[in-house]
Amino acid sequence: MTVYLDHAATTPLRPEARAAWLAATEITGNASSVHGSGQEARRVLEDARERIAAALDCDPIEVVLTSGGTEAVNLALKGLWWSRGAGTAAVVLPDGEHHATWDAVRWLESAQSAVIRPVPLDAFGAIGSASFAAALPGAALATALVANNEVGTVNDAAALAAAAAEAGVPLHLDAVGAAGHLDVAFGRWRGPGAAPHGLVALSVSGHKVGATVGTGALVVSRHARLTALVHGGGQQRGLRSGTQDVAGAAAFAAALEASVTERAAEAERLVALRRRLIDGIRRAVPEAELLGDPDRRLPGNAHVHFPGAAGETLLFLLDQRGISVSTGSACQAGVTEPSHVVLALGRDERAARSVLRLTLGRTSSAADVDALVAALPDAYARAVASGARSAARS
Amino acid sequence: MTVYLDHAATTPLRPEARAAWLAATEITGNASSVHGSGQEARRVLEDARERIAAALDCDPIEVVLTSGGTEAVNLALKGLWWSRGAGTAAVVLPDGEHHATWDAVRWLESAQSAVIRPVPLDAFGAIGSASFAAALPGAALATALVANNEVGTVNDAAALAAAAAEAGVPLHLDAVGAAGHLDVAFGRWRGPGAAPHGLVALSVSGHKVGATVGTGALVVSRHARLTALVHGGGQQRGLRSGTQDVAGAAAFAAALEASVTERAAEAERLVALRRRLIDGIRRAVPEAELLGDPDRRLPGNAHVHFPGAAGETLLFLLDQRGISVSTGSACQAGVTEPSHVVLALGRDERAARSVLRLTLGRTSSAADVDALVAALPDAYARAVASGARSAARS
Repeated sequence: MTVYLDHAATTPLRPEARAAWLAATEITGNASSVHGSGQEARRVLEDARERIAAALDCDPIEVVLTSGGTEAVNLALKGLWWSRGAGTAAVVLPDGEHHATWDAVRWLESAQSAVIRPVPLDAFGAIGSASFAAALPGAALATALVANNEVGTVNDAAALAAAAAEAGVPLHLDAVGAAGHLDVAFGRWRGPGAAPHGLVALSVSGHKVGATVGTGALVVSRHARLTALVHGGGQQRGLRSGTQDVAGAAAFAAALEASVTERAAEAERLVALRRRLIDGIRRAVPEAELLGDPDRRLPGNAHVHFPGAAGETLLFLLDQRGISVSTGSACQAGVTEPSHVVLALGRDERAARSVLRLTLGRTSSAADVDALVAALPDAYARAVASGARSAARS
Repeated sequence: MTVYLDHAATTPLRPEARAAWLAATEITGNASSVHGSGQEARRVLEDARERIAAALDCDPIEVVLTSGGTEAVNLALKGLWWSRGAGTAAVVLPDGEHHATWDAVRWLESAQSAVIRPVPLDAFGAIGSASFAAALPGAALATALVANNEVGTVNDAAALAAAAAEAGVPLHLDAVGAAGHLDVAFGRWRGPGAAPHGLVALSVSGHKVGATVGTGALVVSRHARLTALVHGGGQQRGLRSGTQDVAGAAAFAAALEASVTERAAEAERLVALRRRLIDGIRRAVPEAELLGDPDRRLPGNAHVHFPGAAGETLLFLLDQRGISVSTGSACQAGVTEPSHVVLALGRDERAARSVLRLTLGRTSSAADVDALVAALPDAYARAVASGARSAARS
């Protein structure tokens, strides 16, 4: 029996999503086809789009379905870049963003002449609103995480959006890790008005909320100027061409809707479970230190520094006991680099290699937490010893 | 009961694909995660990749999974463009390509300084090998359909690949409409050698072969130089980042494998059914004329010119009788433009508005064909009369 403590990497498919997917795949018809078969598919698709819009506080026409969070982020950043006004080359890029953002912006820098304006994080991993505002004037675009996907710290999305609106800069918010866990409210954060700047785009992923992998969306304000990343038949306002995945959309809508409905109660449950987890870890390993903001953090996230123990070694030792944890973003897992997020907190490289991200989700229980806590003292002792042996050899 | 004659737009989900999808969604784990849960997902993913590679005659590492054909085409064309050598601005673009290709290349022209070199089609809709070869010298890249998705005409893929190799130009082949119906053989078409030119990329779509929408792949030669369209965690050789859709890959592999296994027998069945369809249409509407090559065409494709009848009107009249047909590519359906493919055959705009694409597939039967043939005389007479009334009014 696996103890799965990596819900931020991906979380089990929700039964509602599976049922919606199965029902939608009974329909044969391309939603772009004019005939009755196509229109039947279209109705299911547009119903899904409406429900996704309701969950994210935007208009259905603003929901551009993508193949997931990474594509949504790339569409937002490259699309805003290609549609920018003349002479504005700067991209405001906070430290510690997800690799989808980081790598997309670095490509714009190396291949499309963008200039990066970094914004530092505070010691808890939050983007300071003042530093962010100071970087904005004259920028082509800005981007920011709603909540950091590694350390879990929640940013003040409304303040970042207000600063971007004030500066006249289009802003993309990455809500991939936040949707379903926090109140993600595109319309409220954007505020009134009809400008192509301020909050104009927001990315979400399906499989992070219990839908199928390969689903997601970019919310694109109807006032935004955005160039497509994928051209073709002109589906979805021409912003994302390609045959639309009706079953995927139905599954995504079902999962997102369920996540939003259950959010308040589930957040309370997860915060209690996280407290049990953090308290247990502290008892098991007194040296352990919680990183990120102790309070303003994703409900299911515990990000812990284990001094002297390589995160990778801990991960393997726990995995041998059937416990799945992560050293950071799954998207970079397998690459044994220090966490760029932990470095951005002002920690050294040694600390950035000695962390575990433990993330709780819908199927997590006290038994899961207790299993981790029980396994930890021995795993920690072995990891520290292994590190000491490596150091002695080198 | 719907008579579905639009299998080229999308075809019903195969039971093998549904079963593979359901089995794979039982696994919780991100295929990029290091722990056992992730590695279990990874095994299913890599097994799927191997089976897709076997079906397309390439190496597993050359299979880059995408969200579908349109993304694969965009990745190929933009990715080859961004990785081109200095000073080579020309893109060889045959007339009558799919809109995914057309619109991607036009964007490269308008936004990224590409220069389009068109290649005419012959009267049957084939790309002439000599005209194609003549356009190649010094080009940054070339692209071509394996089989035209509207009129069904099959090109000589091996000859186009040989010409590109000879000219030292990287070639992308769009096999979205051909996979599962023709013998799509990347390795054989490419031939031996280890060059970054000749056939280097080939796009396929899942839902066209009975997998789920939202799946597909770009085969990318290990020797190709290609820039990613979607950046991030570096999955899939860095060519396509984002959490990999394990269940989608499993479904795609199952559907593609089944299509390839059944291909020879199914092609024979469909050719016979198509003959019944074409003979029936000619009896029902003696004015009707088959467009495209009478022999070298996709087995399930009949593309018919109905003189004096708007294709759109015919489509609606047949739809009222529960018969689903298309006027052209579903990706452009809903847009009442004359078919750019029919125009490329040298026909006038009136003819390009008076066509239907009828496409047979796995679930098609003689009863479907007979229902269309029975409905056609009345629908045609009404469509012609409606056209005459419109002409009299204007």
